[in-house]
Amino acid sequence: MRLVTFTAPGADAARAATWRLGVVLDHDLILDAAPAIAAIDAVAGAPDEYLDWFDAERGWLARVRQAAARAGDPAAVAAWRAAGVVMPASGVALLAPIPRPGKIVCAGLNYRDHAIETKMDIPASPILFAKFSSAVVGDGAAVILPATSHRIDYEAELAVVIGRRARHVPREAAMAHVLGYMNANDVSARDFQKDDGQWVRAKSCDTFAPMGPWLVTAESAGDPHALGVRLRLNGRVMQESSTSQFIFDIPALIAFLSATTTLEPGDVILTGTPPGVGFARKPPVYLAAGDVMDVEIDGLGVLRNPVRAS
Amino acid sequence: MRLVTFTAPGADAARAATWRLGVVLDHDLILDAAPAIAAIDAVAGAPDEYLDWFDAERGWLARVRQAAARAGDPAAVAAWRAAGVVMPASGVALLAPIPRPGKIVCAGLNYRDHAIETKMDIPASPILFAKFSSAVVGDGAAVILPATSHRIDYEAELAVVIGRRARHVPREAAMAHVLGYMNANDVSARDFQKDDGQWVRAKSCDTFAPMGPWLVTAESAGDPHALGVRLRLNGRVMQESSTSQFIFDIPALIAFLSATTTLEPGDVILTGTPPGVGFARKPPVYLAAGDVMDVEIDGLGVLRNPVRAS
Repeated sequence: MRLVTFTAPGADAARAATWRLGVVLDHDLILDAAPAIAAIDAVAGAPDEYLDWFDAERGWLARVRQAAARAGDPAAVAAWRAAGVVMPASGVALLAPIPRPGKIVCAGLNYRDHAIETKMDIPASPILFAKFSSAVVGDGAAVILPATSHRIDYEAELAVVIGRRARHVPREAAMAHVLGYMNANDVSARDFQKDDGQWVRAKSCDTFAPMGPWLVTAESAGDPHALGVRLRLNGRVMQESSTSQFIFDIPALIAFLSATTTLEPGDVILTGTPPGVGFARKPPVYLAAGDVMDVEIDGLGVLRNPVRAS
Repeated sequence: MRLVTFTAPGADAARAATWRLGVVLDHDLILDAAPAIAAIDAVAGAPDEYLDWFDAERGWLARVRQAAARAGDPAAVAAWRAAGVVMPASGVALLAPIPRPGKIVCAGLNYRDHAIETKMDIPASPILFAKFSSAVVGDGAAVILPATSHRIDYEAELAVVIGRRARHVPREAAMAHVLGYMNANDVSARDFQKDDGQWVRAKSCDTFAPMGPWLVTAESAGDPHALGVRLRLNGRVMQESSTSQFIFDIPALIAFLSATTTLEPGDVILTGTPPGVGFARKPPVYLAAGDVMDVEIDGLGVLRNPVRAS
């Protein structure tokens, strides 16, 4: 199942009250989850907190899955269309699938081939850092270059979305806490990163956390440790690797963090980036206004973001 | 005005739907803001997103202030008490004033006397790092020692709460974006901090961000750059300084960060800690189960948190 968050065109997307959960159907159609489940379930409506959609303990997605299963029936889809419960994707504004995660935890230096390329030691435990959620944007949104940075870089990453509260979770049990996966781009101001030592400011400029276009639920995503990951800059492949190169796999990251910090439904883990980032190239490649970045992970679609001056 | 967030005793405090904004009145009474404003204002109810209470652009706090002004009239208070709109603080569960900020931005090494003590260079620009909001707890809540850390430390800090969206705000305009102030304790696992290099995991263990007991709005707080700051561990003064020692003052922090990352209502800035933290002592002092920490900043009350084993 492919999940999106959308709003009516022109709605104030900064307001959670405007967000609607959708399921991507064939033929670029979007199923509006709240009315779809109301039609098949006495428990009408939608959760009162948006992130509850993603909490397995609350059962909302199980109902959505049940509703979406009817999409194989053309008559059901026709009826939905007539009722405005299904609509063309072109008629809505897509946001990031999780427009405002409770937290975004990022793993640094987590690809074996990248560690070798940069001649860095393989870390003994995960190197975790944060991106602030206010930096999240969706597919198609512009990444804005801050006027005060001159070394802005891309990083293709597999984003893992938590679907069940995780506290003190051993690695054997960790995958049961994963809801699904998304493309993400860990845009980074290398000059801030170097100057600050701590990375959060460099990683959290407004628009520096593109994610999407969809959240693909785990049962539809295949083996998350065998996915091709690539980034194209203006059509040219700059990063190309596989999640099989992870130094710390997804269960290891969840076990390591959840030993001390609870992961909550809708939290996002960025799993690190492959070789080929701009600052490590000779000569370096930094983002410029007019560039277009595509992050493409097998089975997760394409996350495309243009680059604009501020 | 002193603001709190409270729930009914026994309510699930993890659910935003249970949170209620309160005003602390004299005699340890709490005014329940939503029914109080409904009684004086045709716009009944409360915002649909909790953090909207703190957004000056939405006007909720202006209504709360108007309602609270009636508390000088004993007859009004008696009527409120009879109606259950005012209640003794002992009858509610106090959470952190902002139970789940959108982000927590922290400034490192921001006290001149602390920088001198540790023989560190005065930084040329703020050193910013993050705490995850899932670590926030209120006054009286236990700080839980993770089993895997053996060097857990306290840090008394002035917390600044944003009350108006701040993007590209120059220092001259910055204070208009501040709603108010709280005591905070930036609890830190020094072993994680040293091992990781990046600080967010060390600073974001569950319960590592006590804040409160109240949010004191700016007009009631006096000059935020001339407040005594102290931390007592089991009654012994361990940190004692003044916010006059800030290397980067509040306008400087807001201007620096908002140049690239938007600050939103309810966001919290921790402004750094004075000398006297445990790891810098000879011999070092780390937290142990049974300890009690008090953070006390002039005019902001006392934030007391016991320490427990996990």
